[in-house]
Amino acid sequence: MLSAEIIAIGSELLTPNFVDTNSMYLTRQLNEIGISVVMKAITGDDENYLEQALRGSLERTPIIITIGGLGPTEDDVTKKVVARVLRRQLVLDDDILASIEKRFKARGVEMPKNNARQALILSGSEVLENKNGTAPGLWINADRNHVVLLPGPPSELMPMFEETCIPRLRKLAGGMALARRIFRTTGLPESALDARIAPIYQKHKNVQTTLLAKPGQVDVRLTAAARTEAEADRTVQDLADGIEKELQEFIFAKTEQSLEEIVGMHLVDKKATIAVAESCTGGMLAERLTGVDGSSRYFLSGIITYSNQSKIDLAGIPPLLLEMQGAVSEEVARGLAESIREKIGTTIGVGITGIAGPSGGSPEKPVGTVHIAVAGPGGISHQRYVFPGSRDRIRWQATQAALNMTRRVLLEM
Amino acid sequence: MLSAEIIAIGSELLTPNFVDTNSMYLTRQLNEIGISVVMKAITGDDENYLEQALRGSLERTPIIITIGGLGPTEDDVTKKVVARVLRRQLVLDDDILASIEKRFKARGVEMPKNNARQALILSGSEVLENKNGTAPGLWINADRNHVVLLPGPPSELMPMFEETCIPRLRKLAGGMALARRIFRTTGLPESALDARIAPIYQKHKNVQTTLLAKPGQVDVRLTAAARTEAEADRTVQDLADGIEKELQEFIFAKTEQSLEEIVGMHLVDKKATIAVAESCTGGMLAERLTGVDGSSRYFLSGIITYSNQSKIDLAGIPPLLLEMQGAVSEEVARGLAESIREKIGTTIGVGITGIAGPSGGSPEKPVGTVHIAVAGPGGISHQRYVFPGSRDRIRWQATQAALNMTRRVLLEM
Repeated sequence: MLSAEIIAIGSELLTPNFVDTNSMYLTRQLNEIGISVVMKAITGDDENYLEQALRGSLERTPIIITIGGLGPTEDDVTKKVVARVLRRQLVLDDDILASIEKRFKARGVEMPKNNARQALILSGSEVLENKNGTAPGLWINADRNHVVLLPGPPSELMPMFEETCIPRLRKLAGGMALARRIFRTTGLPESALDARIAPIYQKHKNVQTTLLAKPGQVDVRLTAAARTEAEADRTVQDLADGIEKELQEFIFAKTEQSLEEIVGMHLVDKKATIAVAESCTGGMLAERLTGVDGSSRYFLSGIITYSNQSKIDLAGIPPLLLEMQGAVSEEVARGLAESIREKIGTTIGVGITGIAGPSGGSPEKPVGTVHIAVAGPGGISHQRYVFPGSRDRIRWQATQAALNMTRRVLLEM
Repeated sequence: MLSAEIIAIGSELLTPNFVDTNSMYLTRQLNEIGISVVMKAITGDDENYLEQALRGSLERTPIIITIGGLGPTEDDVTKKVVARVLRRQLVLDDDILASIEKRFKARGVEMPKNNARQALILSGSEVLENKNGTAPGLWINADRNHVVLLPGPPSELMPMFEETCIPRLRKLAGGMALARRIFRTTGLPESALDARIAPIYQKHKNVQTTLLAKPGQVDVRLTAAARTEAEADRTVQDLADGIEKELQEFIFAKTEQSLEEIVGMHLVDKKATIAVAESCTGGMLAERLTGVDGSSRYFLSGIITYSNQSKIDLAGIPPLLLEMQGAVSEEVARGLAESIREKIGTTIGVGITGIAGPSGGSPEKPVGTVHIAVAGPGGISHQRYVFPGSRDRIRWQATQAALNMTRRVLLEM
């Protein structure tokens, strides 16, 4: 697979709030034509750092794309550094100078003298026209690399890249076709999941396998490149079949959808409705379910029975049960699920009660203990979990588990 | 000024949608103690690229911070590569191994064998304790550099960095005294806020002023550096006084606390309790309130009246009112707030009803229209808002506004 590196240049890019959307955009564009991005770097407007980054990239990667540093000021060092590293001359391009002067004239402004710097190009480079600004881009075929210099403003970079670079890069990529698969899983920690599938994906060196773990979720991504679409598809499908067979019950989506979107989809499919009664998750389950567009079709209501009194008043949990079993118990979870289902008259009722911490734990019921019950037409299922981590993480994992239990109940309906 | 480079490691970081929030966070933290970030790089889980990036960084910059690649899988190459580049051995640390095993045991799970890899450390390195995960960090004093290895999950990286790295780095930065102020505001968009305070902070060139905007919130951070603490403090206080005077009613915290933490603090102060009735926010307000440690002292319960029927059944909104005014109306918001306050018997009741979109808007009630009411001992206050943005953003801003209205009611109690 052809590979590229991206170097973004500009001191403002090294401030805390800067998100390098340009390189995200370029990554997406490059991936779509079968070019992988193997490294990204950000340097300030500093000749030394840029030179070092560039020398490193030239040694290892065929395509180098720089972003920014093509402006008219002293700060804008990209062309100067690239020329030095590639041993090229900087020469004044009369056509570019004329077109910059014309742009200023059209606005009734005299061209500031330093804008002439933008008409300097590297000898032997191809000019990439900038229809939306004064700084043209440059494409340089060096001995072993292609070096592409793009302007920093996204409104200039994006059209320039699509119009002038994509066709060139597509040719270089030799029309490799790509095929991708994704499996979103829940219920297995990353290390356990990896232990199960590593023996499978290690036999498919021609497919790139990536794991991405979040609390309560691991995504497995597969990418194959081949000469034809059919071949890439076959290659990736081979591995995908093996992984799907191994992970079966843990896979909740083979798309980029979230668990709450999947649950919503099943609810719509089954023409089912849902209501929830939450204690330790404090509304997070309802919040996730209602975060999905169109969730009013199936989500009817929820109650957050945080205090014991509200477990009695809002969910009709018998006071004696609370006293005997404690609020964090299988019985209370079942009671919450059943009671909200009956009260609202939904197909599904979910009950959650647990200890999110940091305080409130005990030896028998440590922080992280969560009881979840899902009541449906076929009865009530219940699970006890002990989740690791902070209050936030425990609550998140509890909603993840509740959504997954709901998904399974819906699948069996 | 002391300088640092950040190298983030992980193939998922090179996918198009990934935002490297870790390096943004580290940049902010480093800048605040007077260390500049001169270069950032992202490499995949690839030994060669990481090795080359690392060798380059070691030659030019005293502090190198790596993020990620400390996990238990084959993919996780950071320690191996750093050991090779710095010519150190990888040795098994028995204490770390024991603590990882203990973490798994506490959850009733056997430690997967490959998690033992996380107990490997570089010879001569200091272990940075990970209170929120299994991968410890490492601090290595090399010949001319300090190399710091941090885990990738932000929930592990952030507390580890603040507790173990900041004190060490502060010493390295040479003891310039720093003084800081923060103002967290809500209710003014960033541009309007900046227009009001720019004339003030521009007169204080010796204080670094940074604005950080999130939906429904703008933070103003001031940092001054000086030879003595007293001098730094005087310098920053001068500007802080001016800004506080200008922004007064929009400031909800002069600390790093969230709006829900501030509301929680006031509730505890006033020995008051709260219950909420939410429609369009679907539980997000309750979720935020209960996300605060110890919130069970004041948060009693909530209802999510998503369907119209549940507004009638759970909150006693008269059907005729719903029909006449519509579910998204001042009357329904007031009804929700009043009804939940009475039903649960709390000091404060909050009602929210609105249109989060993307569908459901009309010319009189466009998407983003939200009515919020807060009922307290002194009566009910109400506001109508039209929030811009996506479903998520609208819901977030609605909870932000509801929390701020609650804060004001509590202040007047």
